[in-house]
Amino acid sequence: MTVTRVTLEENEIPTHWYNVVADMPNPPSPPLGPDGKPVGPEQMLAIFPGNLLEQEMSGERWIPIPDAVRDAYRIWRPTPLIRATRLEAALGTPAKIFYKYEGVSPSGSHKPNTAIPQAYYNKQAGINRLTTETGAGQWGSSIAFAGQMFGVEVRIYMVKISYGQKPYRRSMMQTWGAEVFASPSDMTQTGRAILAKDPNSLGSLGIAISEAVEEAAGRKDTNYSLGSVLNHVLLHQTVIGLEAKKQFEKIGEYPDMIFAPCGGGSNFAGIAFPFFADKAAGKNVRLIAVEPTSCPTLTKGVYAYDFGDASGFTPLMQMYTLGHDFMPPGIHAGGLRYHCDSPLVSQLYHEKLIEAVAVPQLATFEAGVKFARAEGIIPAPESCHAVRACIDEALRCKESGEPKTLLFNLSGHGHFDMASYDRYFAGELEDFEYPQEAIAASLAHLPKVG
Amino acid sequence: MTVTRVTLEENEIPTHWYNVVADMPNPPSPPLGPDGKPVGPEQMLAIFPGNLLEQEMSGERWIPIPDAVRDAYRIWRPTPLIRATRLEAALGTPAKIFYKYEGVSPSGSHKPNTAIPQAYYNKQAGINRLTTETGAGQWGSSIAFAGQMFGVEVRIYMVKISYGQKPYRRSMMQTWGAEVFASPSDMTQTGRAILAKDPNSLGSLGIAISEAVEEAAGRKDTNYSLGSVLNHVLLHQTVIGLEAKKQFEKIGEYPDMIFAPCGGGSNFAGIAFPFFADKAAGKNVRLIAVEPTSCPTLTKGVYAYDFGDASGFTPLMQMYTLGHDFMPPGIHAGGLRYHCDSPLVSQLYHEKLIEAVAVPQLATFEAGVKFARAEGIIPAPESCHAVRACIDEALRCKESGEPKTLLFNLSGHGHFDMASYDRYFAGELEDFEYPQEAIAASLAHLPKVG
Repeated sequence: MTVTRVTLEENEIPTHWYNVVADMPNPPSPPLGPDGKPVGPEQMLAIFPGNLLEQEMSGERWIPIPDAVRDAYRIWRPTPLIRATRLEAALGTPAKIFYKYEGVSPSGSHKPNTAIPQAYYNKQAGINRLTTETGAGQWGSSIAFAGQMFGVEVRIYMVKISYGQKPYRRSMMQTWGAEVFASPSDMTQTGRAILAKDPNSLGSLGIAISEAVEEAAGRKDTNYSLGSVLNHVLLHQTVIGLEAKKQFEKIGEYPDMIFAPCGGGSNFAGIAFPFFADKAAGKNVRLIAVEPTSCPTLTKGVYAYDFGDASGFTPLMQMYTLGHDFMPPGIHAGGLRYHCDSPLVSQLYHEKLIEAVAVPQLATFEAGVKFARAEGIIPAPESCHAVRACIDEALRCKESGEPKTLLFNLSGHGHFDMASYDRYFAGELEDFEYPQEAIAASLAHLPKVG
Repeated sequence: MTVTRVTLEENEIPTHWYNVVADMPNPPSPPLGPDGKPVGPEQMLAIFPGNLLEQEMSGERWIPIPDAVRDAYRIWRPTPLIRATRLEAALGTPAKIFYKYEGVSPSGSHKPNTAIPQAYYNKQAGINRLTTETGAGQWGSSIAFAGQMFGVEVRIYMVKISYGQKPYRRSMMQTWGAEVFASPSDMTQTGRAILAKDPNSLGSLGIAISEAVEEAAGRKDTNYSLGSVLNHVLLHQTVIGLEAKKQFEKIGEYPDMIFAPCGGGSNFAGIAFPFFADKAAGKNVRLIAVEPTSCPTLTKGVYAYDFGDASGFTPLMQMYTLGHDFMPPGIHAGGLRYHCDSPLVSQLYHEKLIEAVAVPQLATFEAGVKFARAEGIIPAPESCHAVRACIDEALRCKESGEPKTLLFNLSGHGHFDMASYDRYFAGELEDFEYPQEAIAASLAHLPKVG
């Protein structure tokens, strides 16, 4: 049996990020203020540096990656593209299964791809302190690492359920010198208001974002940093797909279908957008965002203007949403517990240029264990969603006899999620019902525009 | 600032292991029975397959690596050689610091280098079940992974203090399908005897080895597998140093000094022995084994015939030992809590061909945090020992102005050791005194030979 591990040299790290906006059939919908008028960059400058805002608004296809960022990328990039021959054999599928392994980064996920440039651009803009939120802790540990690389202090609001489930993610952030607090906290108005209503709140990404934004907006020396959703974040993640394209070229292959977990959207965009460029040019490639059935933003949400956070501090963005006060069940894929989805991913989905599928929790862990036993790597619960969808397709190929080429983003390892695997083995995990009533209730609170 | 990450292609994985015995000035001392007579292979065949015993006894310089083993190595090998330019800058040293990073393996340490061939050779010999011991869990998780790759069942006796400190290592073993029990257990005579004397025993590698050997010796369908100490284990680990030599050759450098953690000796041997070949041929390279001051086998032990386990099931081997019933303090570098050291490493040390140094626990964590903040990777507590010794040498270079080239084995990441980092940050870790009286007491029980 042959393992095909396609590696690149360090000088093959991309020199530019790919901006999908240049290839979209329609321009992105603008973010709006509560008055229904487009938000100008001046309002965003309170929490973001100008150089990142420029990227946020850019329509240029290629954005150069600064040397200092490429240099930091070299700590773990290029990442390997691996053919899962042992998994193929275990499934008995004629499909060729490839995965891009982002778990080799210091924090163990794809998140440093944007944490590094965000820390760099803030430092360039004279900002020495960042606040942010984190769900499962993958983003928080990545920005802690990146802050340490560029001498930027980092304070992190960590969603309370993950703070409890993943204590060692917290230790990791602290090892890289960051401050970490469970959210909702009593340090912000947002946190205090939520705790007053529900002292046992498990927290959510939406709440944690509100806390981090509130603090950054109130302090001149501090900016805010977001791990997903925004255009510049998705832009930075495209190094994943750009490398994967080079790697497929090296071996004379090309994927028919690409799968990635989808919470805020940067994981999916990172691997899929560079292939979207080919699709826009007529190539036949299917791009599939995989989300949890318990938080089915794309598959069960509405396409509307909504806030990106729970309290309504962010501008209104047009996107798929379950309503900004939707509280997702406490699944173990903390990074996918988010009420909305990136505007760029949402628009492409709305225009039927990409696809989405939702999978239940137990099936994702089953897929993760199957993958670990075949390929050796234990995937993060978020990544298990892509593994599940890809295995399902490989099994359909087995039925049909089609030798499709499948690619998925193995966005992170599960070393900090072993307690979740423990619970899975102990039979303590459950599949949450599709939370129809909760979604209907939160959708009733969608903000009115204008 | 430039990161130098020296990678190899997958076809550059070594085709042969290097056997240091061929270059030693004197033949290895033979293992002895309680009667003082050399133990023949027939006695070892109860717990080891013939093909591994052949390697154990071999004097050949090069042993071919089977294709199936190289193929499994390709899941994570070749591993990168990285120049720690950010650490050099942080220290202000003129030294060039390189590290070989073995933490990229599925289990996160160097241990699969021997777990894979051990599972393979047992399977070849018709054995479908293995028992073993594990300290910190690096070995246990590696043999669980390797067993899964070759369809071999694995039962693991895990030292009780680590079982408590590192629960997620246990989950990892279970994810790869292995059974795990805290040692001392009530499943063996050894375990029951220890518990009868001390129900609160923290366990030790020596005790866990006794339990695993006892079970394997009593069952025809089961062999025993050891993660360090023995000649064939050290042999398999030489892929580390062989790759490192190729990588140095690529960039036209050569190390002046090489540091590696030393518990049983396979970590050290893995990176150092291939360079010993050059040293034996006249090259000037210093090889330094780094051990904890709390378990100072090489620096404070005696060179004598002793058992490799607590109960005296193993043959007598001539090695540095603190006495087979020495109980090391409960330091967090569980992989280094072993009363003796590999016979090959011991003999080379006794003949003054390699060096050893002992470092205290707090200083190792301080070095680990410094490394993590500079280079991004959080080292395992065992690996922190090598980081410490290497940083100390780099600081001496700063004093003297010598631009030495230093190499250390970053044998594993600390993802499963974050509770130890937590305790370090909380000021709860201590430096254990050199346990002089305990060592004197156990040395008084050294077995009489013949």
